[in-house]
Amino acid sequence: THHPVPKKRYTFVIYLALFHVAFVVLMGFFSKYDLSNKNGTSNSSGLYAILFHFCFIILFALFTKYDPIYGQSQVPGLYAMFMDVHSMMFIGFGFLMTFLKRYGYGAVGLNFIIAAFVLEWSILVRGWLEAGINGEADFTINIKSLLVADFCAAAVLISFGAVIGKASLSQLIVMATFEVVIQGVNELIGLHYLQAYDVGESIYVHVFGAYFGLAVSKVLQGTREIESTKESSHYHSDLFAMIGTIFLFLYWPSFNSAVAVDEGQTRAIINTFLGIASSCVATFIISLLVGKGRLNMVHVQNATLAGGVAVGAVADMQIEPFGAMIIGTVAGIISTLGFQFLTPTLNETVVHDTCGVNNLHGMPGLLSGIASAIVAATATRENYNGNRLYVFYPSRTPMSNSTEYSNFSLDLTEFSRGGMGRTAAVQGGYQMAALAVTLGMAIIGGIITGYIMKLPIIEQIQDIEEMFDDEPNWLTPEDYSLKLTE
Amino acid sequence: THHPVPKKRYTFVIYLALFHVAFVVLMGFFSKYDLSNKNGTSNSSGLYAILFHFCFIILFALFTKYDPIYGQSQVPGLYAMFMDVHSMMFIGFGFLMTFLKRYGYGAVGLNFIIAAFVLEWSILVRGWLEAGINGEADFTINIKSLLVADFCAAAVLISFGAVIGKASLSQLIVMATFEVVIQGVNELIGLHYLQAYDVGESIYVHVFGAYFGLAVSKVLQGTREIESTKESSHYHSDLFAMIGTIFLFLYWPSFNSAVAVDEGQTRAIINTFLGIASSCVATFIISLLVGKGRLNMVHVQNATLAGGVAVGAVADMQIEPFGAMIIGTVAGIISTLGFQFLTPTLNETVVHDTCGVNNLHGMPGLLSGIASAIVAATATRENYNGNRLYVFYPSRTPMSNSTEYSNFSLDLTEFSRGGMGRTAAVQGGYQMAALAVTLGMAIIGGIITGYIMKLPIIEQIQDIEEMFDDEPNWLTPEDYSLKLTE
Amino acid sequence: THHPVPKKRYTFVIYLALFHVAFVVLMGFFSKYDLSNKNGTSNSSGLYAILFHFCFIILFALFTKYDPIYGQSQVPGLYAMFMDVHSMMFIGFGFLMTFLKRYGYGAVGLNFIIAAFVLEWSILVRGWLEAGINGEADFTINIKSLLVADFCAAAVLISFGAVIGKASLSQLIVMATFEVVIQGVNELIGLHYLQAYDVGESIYVHVFGAYFGLAVSKVLQGTREIESTKESSHYHSDLFAMIGTIFLFLYWPSFNSAVAVDEGQTRAIINTFLGIASSCVATFIISLLVGKGRLNMVHVQNATLAGGVAVGAVADMQIEPFGAMIIGTVAGIISTLGFQFLTPTLNETVVHDTCGVNNLHGMPGLLSGIASAIVAATATRENYNGNRLYVFYPSRTPMSNSTEYSNFSLDLTEFSRGGMGRTAAVQGGYQMAALAVTLGMAIIGGIITGYIMKLPIIEQIQDIEEMFDDEPNWLTPEDYSLKLTE
Repeated sequence: THHPVPKKRYTFVIYLALFHVAFVVLMGFFSKYDLSNKNGTSNSSGLYAILFHFCFIILFALFTKYDPIYGQSQVPGLYAMFMDVHSMMFIGFGFLMTFLKRYGYGAVGLNFIIAAFVLEWSILVRGWLEAGINGEADFTINIKSLLVADFCAAAVLISFGAVIGKASLSQLIVMATFEVVIQGVNELIGLHYLQAYDVGESIYVHVFGAYFGLAVSKVLQGTREIESTKESSHYHSDLFAMIGTIFLFLYWPSFNSAVAVDEGQTRAIINTFLGIASSCVATFIISLLVGKGRLNMVHVQNATLAGGVAVGAVADMQIEPFGAMIIGTVAGIISTLGFQFLTPTLNETVVHDTCGVNNLHGMPGLLSGIASAIVAATATRENYNGNRLYVFYPSRTPMSNSTEYSNFSLDLTEFSRGGMGRTAAVQGGYQMAALAVTLGMAIIGGIITGYIMKLPIIEQIQDIEEMFDDEPNWLTPEDYSLKLTE
Repeated sequence: THHPVPKKRYTFVIYLALFHVAFVVLMGFFSKYDLSNKNGTSNSSGLYAILFHFCFIILFALFTKYDPIYGQSQVPGLYAMFMDVHSMMFIGFGFLMTFLKRYGYGAVGLNFIIAAFVLEWSILVRGWLEAGINGEADFTINIKSLLVADFCAAAVLISFGAVIGKASLSQLIVMATFEVVIQGVNELIGLHYLQAYDVGESIYVHVFGAYFGLAVSKVLQGTREIESTKESSHYHSDLFAMIGTIFLFLYWPSFNSAVAVDEGQTRAIINTFLGIASSCVATFIISLLVGKGRLNMVHVQNATLAGGVAVGAVADMQIEPFGAMIIGTVAGIISTLGFQFLTPTLNETVVHDTCGVNNLHGMPGLLSGIASAIVAATATRENYNGNRLYVFYPSRTPMSNSTEYSNFSLDLTEFSRGGMGRTAAVQGGYQMAALAVTLGMAIIGGIITGYIMKLPIIEQIQDIEEMFDDEPNWLTPEDYSLKLTE
Repeated sequence: THHPVPKKRYTFVIYLALFHVAFVVLMGFFSKYDLSNKNGTSNSSGLYAILFHFCFIILFALFTKYDPIYGQSQVPGLYAMFMDVHSMMFIGFGFLMTFLKRYGYGAVGLNFIIAAFVLEWSILVRGWLEAGINGEADFTINIKSLLVADFCAAAVLISFGAVIGKASLSQLIVMATFEVVIQGVNELIGLHYLQAYDVGESIYVHVFGAYFGLAVSKVLQGTREIESTKESSHYHSDLFAMIGTIFLFLYWPSFNSAVAVDEGQTRAIINTFLGIASSCVATFIISLLVGKGRLNMVHVQNATLAGGVAVGAVADMQIEPFGAMIIGTVAGIISTLGFQFLTPTLNETVVHDTCGVNNLHGMPGLLSGIASAIVAATATRENYNGNRLYVFYPSRTPMSNSTEYSNFSLDLTEFSRGGMGRTAAVQGGYQMAALAVTLGMAIIGGIITGYIMKLPIIEQIQDIEEMFDDEPNWLTPEDYSLKLTE
């Protein structure tokens, strides 16, 4: 059963090569270092980069304005958290998907190339979007840019989980190319225009990634039923997958708190720690019950993490430790039940979801979005020690000409230029709006991307025999063909 | 050989579910965030939490006193070290125990649920103990609380190592429930009442966890001899175990230095680094000698780490680099010899110790305790640059009305209210006392807990065939039954 | 095929034991803690240590001068990065080499003992070299000493990659003993005398380690052709190797930036991140092309990382993001082509290179060295915002009596005592000189060390049957002998 290599795979190579070269060129034109130590606050860089390519001397005469802070490193604060998130992308997602007994190379290897491709592409896309918002011609790169690129990779890798084993390399890179743009635009709408807050990216990454991936899977699959004996695990492939699970579990507090500020960061760490521990406990309980007294590795590998997703959008808010635990517990229950009862049915009737991303990212993400609306709609100045409320809900800062503005003794240094003066209920509504917009963008974007991935120019996987199998994509070692007969 | 699921397993599910729900409720009643940036220094919170449940408005009017420092995150200092320790619990302990060829799911999976359960439970238990000492009604949670919960998990996971493969899920959770309380009380006695210092938790975690687990194992086992062909490794299960070993090796300096202060933290890192490297070198030397020229994976996986344990209780002290190396070397030798000669004998005659925790945690921990007494008994003001002595041995701070107090120009800001004025020899005695109390608490607590675990209401593993085997607890993949015949 | 244990292995045990004891004794005589919080800046300690061994009281009366800063920890800045690098040594290198189907214990186990041995030995060697330069009698240990020890371990572990499976334990420890000294002397010549900068150690560690190892391999091999069916992978051994690959990929930004300063550290992180992502993308492109549409695990495990090496020597320089990407891309291409075409030929005709270190460390390191010369030769005051140039190229600081010195308003606090006043071109020449010296020292040092390793007193591996096989060195489990027939 040696599968011949389809000619179209070379189209993919050309595609990947062209894109990579384009990325390098585009980086040359548009990106500069941001060497300030103010993590994530981008400085005004004007038209520097265009001038740069015409005139080095003028550029560097202007350089001090572009980046006024020398003699400092951005490392101490953000870098360790970025590294934790970085590990989640490559070790966490990569190994989590190695549970497939004959797709281990694909899981960790294709995860590797997709993530690396997305890191490059998303720095450009996010840079352009940010430059566009700020009316600038180029953008700067700092540690936070790398972190945001990892978040963006998370969305694509979640979508990858829905289609792993069923899409060709070429299709996956095409998917990544479009998803990065659509996800970036959606997050811009949500954060910038709707001002809906989501510190742990549960809405903008988890919900988006899951339903985008499921929409793609549906389009790729059509009405075809996918049933393969290869879609299962071996004893050791399950242990490899547990490496991924544990790394995701460990570093989730960093994922949810990396961009949080001040005391919100401490809260985000504590809430995620308690929420994800709660989903772990809940998963073991439900798994034993539905497994008639036996634990199921699929649940332990996945549903244990649902609390990290579900706490995400409210992680930095004053939800109290027991609130985080309740959210995590509910997520663990929903997720385990989803893996046990929902996915087997959906796989046959609606859409095939290889890793069950609907259970780990989709439904817990929706839960998190709804929780964020409820928490926002009930947040008071009392909860947040008065003016600190406006640190976590900037949109609720009173307008500068309002009586509240002066009553609450707000000033320009702390809350610049006043705010939009939203009420709690209105903010709750905007959270729900962002969730709805995200769902819509993900599903419509995924359908369009899915049809592009089905264009005849791109390599397709036709034969179910070729699915969930490393052999079509990889040179395999001598013992590989023996493994299936075990 | 498909084992039927015992009905009593469902009792465990109810137990776990009830406890988890109880934890959530208790967190709601007793815990609050500590959002200050003073890691680990808990603020006086008075009766806030009880008022909280009656009256939100009064609570939040008082809120600024409870947590006066806003606008800051606890992250920079402690968080990275907490994450290292967190990794040791889930990756380190979890994978270290995967060496058993047919208990890999159990090693990493049961390690996962036990650790998550303990994290929740120990935050409550430690919170109550601390609140009790301070005469308060509730407690606050900060990053240090999460770190202490991980230390507590370490004790339980060490005990798990003594009984892994021989105790049911239900029994393990019962063990965790009691051990957290007894370990917490013992550490309170040692640190608060005896003022015996143990920065790396060698006494309060390693000695306690090892002998508690061995006492439990003895009670469970009774006079039954346990001999199973399943209690051995496969080639790849040994490689999985090495993941655990290496992570424990890497992050041990963080374990021993996380709660150290000032220059003591630097010393703790250097001493642990040198001590654990020394035990690694010593282990390879002894392993080759006793293995007649061949290395033994059991030694490499375990005894290499003994230096981390043995340096623990004195890691932040002025023991000099070569002192740390001598301690690590001795620990590596003792531990390797223990695995080679002691454990096989003890397993047959006294108590069965699956992972050899006596060799990795027990004896090196005792060594560390004895070292801490010697180091304490010989510590002088000269060693520690004068008054710095009292930073590392607060109990030796002269009493405020003594002549030494004024001679050494101590003042209230640096050494508040004077101290107990212990001499070096007395402090050495207290270190030995803490070690003795810990041994007693561990053994007696373990025996009592063991008998509770044998109550007929709790699922027991009767058949030696069911031991060291994932099949009774897990849904296993198709290749699992084939592995044994290999 | 049970190989008897050669008697000479016990010589190795004696060797290792003697050295370890010698290390402990030497640490006692020469090393002290550096407890200041100025990472890596060693304080003048004069003749303290010699006095120390005669007279405790005088020593400690002088102690405040030796280490004036108490009450502070070195942790926040450097420690997290040190931990990342530490992980690369033990997890990264250890697991990367587990790809050999029958040498997994050897990969991760011998990597473990070699690294631990080198950590001890290199702290001494580097301490003596530094003390010699400063005209002091002893040296201090701080967090940076541990980091430098890990860098030194990297060089030895790279050399290990060239000879893994073909050298006995005894030979490996002998190699480590000599390589640490020669590598240390070479880096001293490069950094101190030639003032050639290499922030990511591409020249002093990667080039040195690769060609030292290849020279050793050539001497060991002689004209003998090495061909073994055991020199290949299994499906799961490739997945274990990917653990190593991913950890090296993740933490490479920390490797290249750990000793960088100020804004150079931010640049080093961004450049390494982009460079290594680029080599990953380039590797997948070339691997598919040369594999006739199929990916090759050897490429994915190794060449993906070449960008980290290639960016190393210029990582903290103003090379711009797209510059880092071009360097990484070229490195990925060269490295993949090297694995595909060069190594198979070289293995048969010139020198056997088990892990292909020439492709991952050798050629990308040479590329980095050449890049460092070009970048140095084109660096201007304008690139670096004026005087900041002299932070990254201290050798270019104008001499204190020159007109430039006063024109550029340099002063004693910022650029002490003026500099050597090198021009850009001269600095470029010194970078090339350092690269040439390193190549020479590595090859000549490797040849000499190789001949020492062939001394009859040291255990040799004669039989090709014993190569790439764990059985001669380890007690192996029951399933080990079956694996080969799979």
